[in-house]
Amino acid sequence: MFLTRTEYDRGVNTFSPEGRLFQVEYAIEAIKLGSTAIGLKTKDGVVLAVEKRITSPLLEPSSVEKIMEIDEHIGCAMSGLIADARTLVEHARVETQNHRFSYGEPMTAESTTQALCDLALRFGEGDEESMSRPFGVSLLIAGHDENGPSLYYTDPSGTFWQCNAKAIGSGSEGADSSLQEQYNKDLTLQEAETIALSILKQVMEEKVTPNNVDIARVAPTFHLYTPSEVEAVITRL
Amino acid sequence: MFLTRTEYDRGVNTFSPEGRLFQVEYAIEAIKLGSTAIGLKTKDGVVLAVEKRITSPLLEPSSVEKIMEIDEHIGCAMSGLIADARTLVEHARVETQNHRFSYGEPMTAESTTQALCDLALRFGEGDEESMSRPFGVSLLIAGHDENGPSLYYTDPSGTFWQCNAKAIGSGSEGADSSLQEQYNKDLTLQEAETIALSILKQVMEEKVTPNNVDIARVAPTFHLYTPSEVEAVITRL
Amino acid sequence: MFLTRTEYDRGVNTFSPEGRLFQVEYAIEAIKLGSTAIGLKTKDGVVLAVEKRITSPLLEPSSVEKIMEIDEHIGCAMSGLIADARTLVEHARVETQNHRFSYGEPMTAESTTQALCDLALRFGEGDEESMSRPFGVSLLIAGHDENGPSLYYTDPSGTFWQCNAKAIGSGSEGADSSLQEQYNKDLTLQEAETIALSILKQVMEEKVTPNNVDIARVAPTFHLYTPSEVEAVITRL
Amino acid sequence: MFLTRTEYDRGVNTFSPEGRLFQVEYAIEAIKLGSTAIGLKTKDGVVLAVEKRITSPLLEPSSVEKIMEIDEHIGCAMSGLIADARTLVEHARVETQNHRFSYGEPMTAESTTQALCDLALRFGEGDEESMSRPFGVSLLIAGHDENGPSLYYTDPSGTFWQCNAKAIGSGSEGADSSLQEQYNKDLTLQEAETIALSILKQVMEEKVTPNNVDIARVAPTFHLYTPSEVEAVITRL
Amino acid sequence: MFLTRTEYDRGVNTFSPEGRLFQVEYAIEAIKLGSTAIGLKTKDGVVLAVEKRITSPLLEPSSVEKIMEIDEHIGCAMSGLIADARTLVEHARVETQNHRFSYGEPMTAESTTQALCDLALRFGEGDEESMSRPFGVSLLIAGHDENGPSLYYTDPSGTFWQCNAKAIGSGSEGADSSLQEQYNKDLTLQEAETIALSILKQVMEEKVTPNNVDIARVAPTFHLYTPSEVEAVITRL
Amino acid sequence: MFLTRTEYDRGVNTFSPEGRLFQVEYAIEAIKLGSTAIGLKTKDGVVLAVEKRITSPLLEPSSVEKIMEIDEHIGCAMSGLIADARTLVEHARVETQNHRFSYGEPMTAESTTQALCDLALRFGEGDEESMSRPFGVSLLIAGHDENGPSLYYTDPSGTFWQCNAKAIGSGSEGADSSLQEQYNKDLTLQEAETIALSILKQVMEEKVTPNNVDIARVAPTFHLYTPSEVEAVITRL
Amino acid sequence: MFLTRTEYDRGVNTFSPEGRLFQVEYAIEAIKLGSTAIGLKTKDGVVLAVEKRITSPLLEPSSVEKIMEIDEHIGCAMSGLIADARTLVEHARVETQNHRFSYGEPMTAESTTQALCDLALRFGEGDEESMSRPFGVSLLIAGHDENGPSLYYTDPSGTFWQCNAKAIGSGSEGADSSLQEQYNKDLTLQEAETIALSILKQVMEEKVTPNNVDIARVAPTFHLYTPSEVEAVITRL
Repeated sequence: MFLTRTEYDRGVNTFSPEGRLFQVEYAIEAIKLGSTAIGLKTKDGVVLAVEKRITSPLLEPSSVEKIMEIDEHIGCAMSGLIADARTLVEHARVETQNHRFSYGEPMTAESTTQALCDLALRFGEGDEESMSRPFGVSLLIAGHDENGPSLYYTDPSGTFWQCNAKAIGSGSEGADSSLQEQYNKDLTLQEAETIALSILKQVMEEKVTPNNVDIARVAPTFHLYTPSEVEAVITRL
Repeated sequence: MFLTRTEYDRGVNTFSPEGRLFQVEYAIEAIKLGSTAIGLKTKDGVVLAVEKRITSPLLEPSSVEKIMEIDEHIGCAMSGLIADARTLVEHARVETQNHRFSYGEPMTAESTTQALCDLALRFGEGDEESMSRPFGVSLLIAGHDENGPSLYYTDPSGTFWQCNAKAIGSGSEGADSSLQEQYNKDLTLQEAETIALSILKQVMEEKVTPNNVDIARVAPTFHLYTPSEVEAVITRL
Repeated sequence: MFLTRTEYDRGVNTFSPEGRLFQVEYAIEAIKLGSTAIGLKTKDGVVLAVEKRITSPLLEPSSVEKIMEIDEHIGCAMSGLIADARTLVEHARVETQNHRFSYGEPMTAESTTQALCDLALRFGEGDEESMSRPFGVSLLIAGHDENGPSLYYTDPSGTFWQCNAKAIGSGSEGADSSLQEQYNKDLTLQEAETIALSILKQVMEEKVTPNNVDIARVAPTFHLYTPSEVEAVITRL
Repeated sequence: MFLTRTEYDRGVNTFSPEGRLFQVEYAIEAIKLGSTAIGLKTKDGVVLAVEKRITSPLLEPSSVEKIMEIDEHIGCAMSGLIADARTLVEHARVETQNHRFSYGEPMTAESTTQALCDLALRFGEGDEESMSRPFGVSLLIAGHDENGPSLYYTDPSGTFWQCNAKAIGSGSEGADSSLQEQYNKDLTLQEAETIALSILKQVMEEKVTPNNVDIARVAPTFHLYTPSEVEAVITRL
Repeated sequence: MFLTRTEYDRGVNTFSPEGRLFQVEYAIEAIKLGSTAIGLKTKDGVVLAVEKRITSPLLEPSSVEKIMEIDEHIGCAMSGLIADARTLVEHARVETQNHRFSYGEPMTAESTTQALCDLALRFGEGDEESMSRPFGVSLLIAGHDENGPSLYYTDPSGTFWQCNAKAIGSGSEGADSSLQEQYNKDLTLQEAETIALSILKQVMEEKVTPNNVDIARVAPTFHLYTPSEVEAVITRL
Repeated sequence: MFLTRTEYDRGVNTFSPEGRLFQVEYAIEAIKLGSTAIGLKTKDGVVLAVEKRITSPLLEPSSVEKIMEIDEHIGCAMSGLIADARTLVEHARVETQNHRFSYGEPMTAESTTQALCDLALRFGEGDEESMSRPFGVSLLIAGHDENGPSLYYTDPSGTFWQCNAKAIGSGSEGADSSLQEQYNKDLTLQEAETIALSILKQVMEEKVTPNNVDIARVAPTFHLYTPSEVEAVITRL
Repeated sequence: MFLTRTEYDRGVNTFSPEGRLFQVEYAIEAIKLGSTAIGLKTKDGVVLAVEKRITSPLLEPSSVEKIMEIDEHIGCAMSGLIADARTLVEHARVETQNHRFSYGEPMTAESTTQALCDLALRFGEGDEESMSRPFGVSLLIAGHDENGPSLYYTDPSGTFWQCNAKAIGSGSEGADSSLQEQYNKDLTLQEAETIALSILKQVMEEKVTPNNVDIARVAPTFHLYTPSEVEAVITRL
């Protein structure tokens, strides 16, 4: 009675007979091809850890940025199309700076996440800032504001959720199970670092080194770990 | 003599030979995939109750918002694409604030609903605020204005109806039957809460907890129940 | 020699080899799916009567509006896509108010009908007020102006006709035959009410009640009957 | 070697390999579906006569307008899509009024016809006044200006010709033959009326009555015949 | 290895694998369907002669304009879609008047021809004056300016050539051969008239009369021959 | 695994799976259909020579312009679609005049060539000056500026190269071989003229006459040879 | 279950079911057709070396530019569509000059690379500077700024990486392996030149000469080697 799914899946904004938007679902698939990223919220701050795929020994590891600062109290880890993520992060940086300028106070992590998702939802609308296709990227947004630490997860449909812990990317399924087993609300930041890295280790095909993972915390300000700080966490495993 | 339906169902604004607009009908299907929401009007106010699908124990339940405040005397429950609902609610919030500013009085629930549907109807027209496809969401809009309490139901075609009680989402068929059996105009707010939650309970696959349902009332102002208030209603069942 | 009709019927503004515009013809089909509406002109005024499909006992019958006031001396009944009708009526209301403001006198029913049809004809033209498809609605426009009472009938092609009596919607075929048998120019308003309702009764599947029909007159001002006034007409049958 | 015609006939502005524009030719077909209209030029003025298809006895015959005044010295008869004709006539009315205002004298019939055809030619160009398809209508334009009486015939391609006598619409083929037999330059207006109506009578399926034909003359001003004036012509047959 | 031509011939601006633009070539075909036109340059001026197809004896021959004045020293004959030609001529008239106004001197025939071709080349570009398809018309442009008499020939691709003599339209092939035999640079204007008409006579299916041909000269100003002047040329044959 | 080339070759800006842009390659084919043009750089200046296809003896040879002046120190020869070349040359003329006006000095040949290629590259971008398809023309641009004489060659992809000698058009393959054999850097202008014409002679199907070739030099200013100057070169062969 | 890849690979911004953007991947293929380019970073500066394909001995080798200066401290080597590269380089030149003008200091190599990639990412968005397809070019960007020497590599997806050494173009696979064997961080500039050229030599089909390779260094300012400087490096091999 209905056509197969394949007839509906190329129009970016076409509903299938069951009410699905396939281009958004395919963009979500793009993230399953991406490197794994993990976030954990503790009462003292949020920890982000990502796998970096260093395809050549001649590549400068620090130039593969999978964790970025948005404002001094907000950072994010990403999985999927990195160039898309950069557009979103750049947009968020402008929004948070505008907010500081207009109101004399930092933007909350939730408002920042909402601003990112508003842009993500507008794909296919033809206005100036939006894209002609869904953004092929998921973000883990770590913040520390007047409401304390918080962790948000966004997907290509422009939807977001607040989480205690979350994994995205190719290893997210296994990593999410491990997080559910190991997470509790009373973790210290250091325990969170150890859990994040040990789970990354399980899902990565290579040996973990300061070159192929990045770790950052927002506690209460954003800090990307130096190679020796990463080395210290690896040693603790 | 005619083609099958499948030839007409991808153009957002193409009539089929029988005079149907399939993309709107498919958007309505999107809502049948959504979580169930229920609204009941009593003489003292309106009660809204929704199922929240918490896919992971690490998700922060309060960040899954399926009931939102539009103005202090208007709230809504939603089913379908949440990001679409947010665009509609944001539009309604601007409209109600503009109305207060221009006329010095709150906008009525009916005018607010009409404003939402005007936006919903304009899909595919290419102007700035409208979408290039139908909004994939239904709303139950609860209000309390100079005409007393009222409950409106909107669908993706931009049409709305005033109801005494209504269910939307995947469990709406069963829930609507139960509402017809149990509803009468003399219900108290508390009885309405109990009916709403007991019907939600029937259509949900999981046990009802303060984490996976939200309840709100507009009586005469919007109030989203705290977890302990939700717990109290659950206890009454 | 020619393709079958199906090759020409999806472009909103494509002629078939025989010179037909199928999307307009399909929009006309949309009206045959709609509820039935009837209009009768008498020397004292015009009577409109419509069937309302109340799909649930929990629906507020008064919120299913199939008869609307355009100006105090003009009203209309509709069949087809109600959201489309609302756009047309809203446009007509602005036009009639502008006319009063500019010329200090009411707009005639004919000019108002012409203004509605100008908008309806512009579909697919991409300008601001017009739609990207034909309006899927027919209207019966009842007016009372310096030329006395008048009844107009419009269809999705942007064409209109003046009539003495007319039925639109799913039961229009049978209703039109009955009107031709029963109509004469000397009917009183009360007789017209009775004929309209008795014909509606024949084409409706349910029992006629004040909940599932609406009646209005323009004689010389628009008046939508209260439930008890409708009850009185039902009693007379 | 070439594709069949059907591959070229849906793009409004696509040439076929033989150099033809099929959408224009199909629009010309639309006129062959229309009611018949006839025009005759005499030395004293021009006569226009049209068949009106009254599909229901409840329709007000005077509201089926197939002859319209453009300016006091120009009128036109039409066949094809009436709503399209109205757009053209409205455009011509504005042009003739602008001309009177700017130059203090009436616009000639030829300039008026040229202005109509300029609009008709612009279909598919996307500018504000033009249509996205050819206008599906032919006009017989009767005028009386400083050059005396004149009769113009326009078709959907935006081309026009000056004629002594011409028939358009479904009965045009037979009517044109009759006109060639009966026309001479020394006809009086009254003889022209009689010829026009007698030819209409041949091509109409129903009996000719003042209800189903309209007659007008421009001699030297536009005058649409009253029912009794039409009756008088019928009687003369 | 390549597709057949038919796959490339509907996009107005698509190259085929051999580097051809088929829509332009098809527009050139449109001219081969048109009536024949002939131009001859003499040292005293240029002669243009065209066949007029009078499809009905009731058509006013003078209203079939195939030769038009652009400025007092430039005229043109046309073959193909007359409505397209009118747009080009109208454009040229504005350009030549602007030139006179800006520079106080007439525009040369070559600049006028260039301006026409600039417009013709821009088809498919979407700007305001251009068409969405090639202009389906060829022109013979006769001028007399500071460089003496000149004759230009334009085709739908926006290219032009200067000629001593040229024929366009359905009979152009035979007419061009005759011109090559009979043309020499020392022809008088009267000899050129005679040659033009005698060649037209060969390619026309009907007897030549003042009703079905038009003759004009630019020597040094544009003059369209009266019926009796045409009659005089016919008599000379 | 891949589709055949034919699936990718109609979108003007679509990459094939091997990373090719077929519409540009097809435009390059258009040039292989064009007449042959040859350029040679000497230490004293640059010589350009082109074949002119005079399809009829009635055509004015001087109106077939295949060599055009851009500025007094820059000229170009062309092969392919002449109307496209004219658009490019017109653009270059404006650029060089603007440069003189802004900087009080002539634009270099390289900058002029770059400006032409910038326009050529922008096809399909929809801005005002650009085309909706690649320009189907190649140019040989001869200049003489502060860096001495120079010869540039451009193709439809918007790429350009500096050359000592180059042939374009249908006979370019054979002509390029001959150029490689006969060219050396110490040629005089007169020797270059002779080589250019003798190579043209080989690739042309007809006898070389002052009517069917054009020669020009930029040494240091642009000069198009008169028929007698061309005759003199022919005599030297 | 899914369609083959070929159904998704022509829309520039369409995700395939696995979340891939094929047009970007095909643009990356375009680079594999390009000439080879190599970059090496040393502590004293960066060396770039490229193969130049000189298709004819009459071509001026210096006009085949595959290495370009962006600012005095930044240069780049390119592989793929040269006209696309020019657009990117031109954009980068404007950005670096604007930066100098606004901030009185040179733009860093990383910011310059980011600016290039922002433009590359925007393809298909329809704004003024962006392209309607991905840029078919990869760049090796060599810079020397406050952070010392750096080498960046960009691809058509708008992504960039910092590298110690990198090869792009048709010979990149073999060249990258050689680079990994021979590269170490303590290379002198002279050793880097020798390695770059010896690797180019391996992947080129012709003998290496100053005519068919270009070498440049940024140490700390951009310098393109003269033919004799290139000769000197060749001699060292």
